[in-house]
Amino acid sequence: MTLTRRDFAKLGALGLAAQFAPQLHAQANKKKIGYAIIGLGRIAGHFMPGIRNTTNSQVTALVSGHRDKAERLADQYGVPHSSIYSYDDFDRIAENKAVDAVYVALPNSMHAEYTIRAAKAGKHVLCEKPMAASVADAEAMIAACKAANVKLMIAYRCHYEPTNLKAVQLIRQGALGQVQAIESQFGFNIAPGEWRLNRKLAGGGPLYDVGIYSLNACRYLTGEEPAHIAAFASVIDHDGRFNEVEENVSWTMKFPSGIVASCNTTYGAPMEGFFRVHGSKGTLEAAPAFNYDGLRLIADFAGTHIDKPNPAKDPYQFTAQAEHFSHCIQNGLAPKTPGEEGLRDMRYIAQIYHSAGIDI
Amino acid sequence: MTLTRRDFAKLGALGLAAQFAPQLHAQANKKKIGYAIIGLGRIAGHFMPGIRNTTNSQVTALVSGHRDKAERLADQYGVPHSSIYSYDDFDRIAENKAVDAVYVALPNSMHAEYTIRAAKAGKHVLCEKPMAASVADAEAMIAACKAANVKLMIAYRCHYEPTNLKAVQLIRQGALGQVQAIESQFGFNIAPGEWRLNRKLAGGGPLYDVGIYSLNACRYLTGEEPAHIAAFASVIDHDGRFNEVEENVSWTMKFPSGIVASCNTTYGAPMEGFFRVHGSKGTLEAAPAFNYDGLRLIADFAGTHIDKPNPAKDPYQFTAQAEHFSHCIQNGLAPKTPGEEGLRDMRYIAQIYHSAGIDI
Repeated sequence: MTLTRRDFAKLGALGLAAQFAPQLHAQANKKKIGYAIIGLGRIAGHFMPGIRNTTNSQVTALVSGHRDKAERLADQYGVPHSSIYSYDDFDRIAENKAVDAVYVALPNSMHAEYTIRAAKAGKHVLCEKPMAASVADAEAMIAACKAANVKLMIAYRCHYEPTNLKAVQLIRQGALGQVQAIESQFGFNIAPGEWRLNRKLAGGGPLYDVGIYSLNACRYLTGEEPAHIAAFASVIDHDGRFNEVEENVSWTMKFPSGIVASCNTTYGAPMEGFFRVHGSKGTLEAAPAFNYDGLRLIADFAGTHIDKPNPAKDPYQFTAQAEHFSHCIQNGLAPKTPGEEGLRDMRYIAQIYHSAGIDI
Repeated sequence: MTLTRRDFAKLGALGLAAQFAPQLHAQANKKKIGYAIIGLGRIAGHFMPGIRNTTNSQVTALVSGHRDKAERLADQYGVPHSSIYSYDDFDRIAENKAVDAVYVALPNSMHAEYTIRAAKAGKHVLCEKPMAASVADAEAMIAACKAANVKLMIAYRCHYEPTNLKAVQLIRQGALGQVQAIESQFGFNIAPGEWRLNRKLAGGGPLYDVGIYSLNACRYLTGEEPAHIAAFASVIDHDGRFNEVEENVSWTMKFPSGIVASCNTTYGAPMEGFFRVHGSKGTLEAAPAFNYDGLRLIADFAGTHIDKPNPAKDPYQFTAQAEHFSHCIQNGLAPKTPGEEGLRDMRYIAQIYHSAGIDI
């Protein structure tokens, strides 16, 4: 049996997926949530168009060290120039009633400072992953948001992405039988000069940046927390890129049920974001699993074959996660991927580095 | 650029592949090497048709506890009934001049005994993998063959298989640039009652049986020996199958160059034999990688796309390895996969089990 597109869509509307699904109903009777975008780099370039496609969110302020760039984007998104902030005068945002929340899209090590300053300014915080450059920073961020009574969500876009949700749903429904083992990878061959190669800014190497997708995927695919972790890391290319962060990490995890997982990440080679889950009744994979678009789910179990490219185009994942966070703010709900979810990954990352003999 | 079939064939004839390639030239001037097949189970059912397709090998004796089955097969392969042995009278094979070598296709724990008895009978030994049920047994097998001045080869059929050899060749030629990371898996959902589930007969679980393919592949793909190994094992299904051996193993390895590898094996789920190699210039995978046929090589590097199903049909791998061993015997050469190769895997398997907390 092969699932039709309609069956697939139907599955998507059921069960566990619904738990994560973005709220797609227009909230016409509610004021849109206004976001200040902190950091106008690459990922903000996905988030801002993403927010434009929501029913409940809008960009209402920009925070940048580049006034020219900020003014250009402000004009594009209908943001008054009076709502452009520099990093120095950022705290004045407290007085801006058009800003309900901030989106933190800065280098990792700056997440904590701007999350905490935003919380003190009374703004909810949607922070990119990895949550921070250290466990201590992540804990401080949670504490600050709690003290200020603002919501904190980590931008784990895959938790709001239908291909990933479908994989989770099939597993929870028992389509694969008892899950035994998972493989996941994500990496790329990094260009010299990236801030990601600066330990102080990035916190770590590919594990922080892209390996976190595999780590997090193993957790949402199993619905369990890893009980044991073992890892190796290496630098092979002594070409100046890896003076501060690792080039490769390979790690294995064992979950409480006995499910095992093996993962790789790299900054030294193309490595498509990928996961494959082996259950007693069959196999399921997403390839690619973590890209901004072009995702594809392949599954074979009990006579069923699924090969389903996801036609949704970037920035659909950014739309879904902004929609979700705004919905939580509007309705006083807890986000699906709160600070605590980010903190858990930070702790597992620390365990992986520790096992690999890397001090962080 | 896409490699044509002809380019692909041409590549296969070059460089490193040639080093491993089976000797396909008829050795018309040499007597065919006569094999006694020890154990007439599943794998012998591949080996015997395989040997029939060689130019330099033939089945000349059978060793079995089932006289009826042996007589049927003897008639099929032109083996005189006087060359059928039981396990009790096996040592009489020393007097059989039509037998140059034995093929040991018994449960793992019996490999040592029959390899050593064959060596004492003056016969060369081609032994299935895993080489033995323990490191000590493997060492004893090597010593016995050395003492008897007979050759010992472990039946690592992938070392003689063109899709695997092509992968090795592309890597050695630098097509992928600097290799950074490898993933490999192999497993299946085992039926109850198999001898493979009996620790005394099998030595261990899926790691011994099929995980060894991934372990060995990581070694021939890198051309290196693992310097560090970490592993977890588990039993999830308490349904009587896994009272003696593990159900799942996940392990990670670090090689001296810094290449990392992550592997899974299972007896609890379908898990296609697979490897994927990530280099600075591209990616290469074989899927399936370890089956008896239907292998497929996919590679993308520097503008080249390869997607090459291997049309060869089982028992082509058994033909190639028998051809190779017979050629070595005829010409006084060392086989490409001697006992020492098997012993290395036995030692790494012991390390994996040790890391996973399993006593063997």
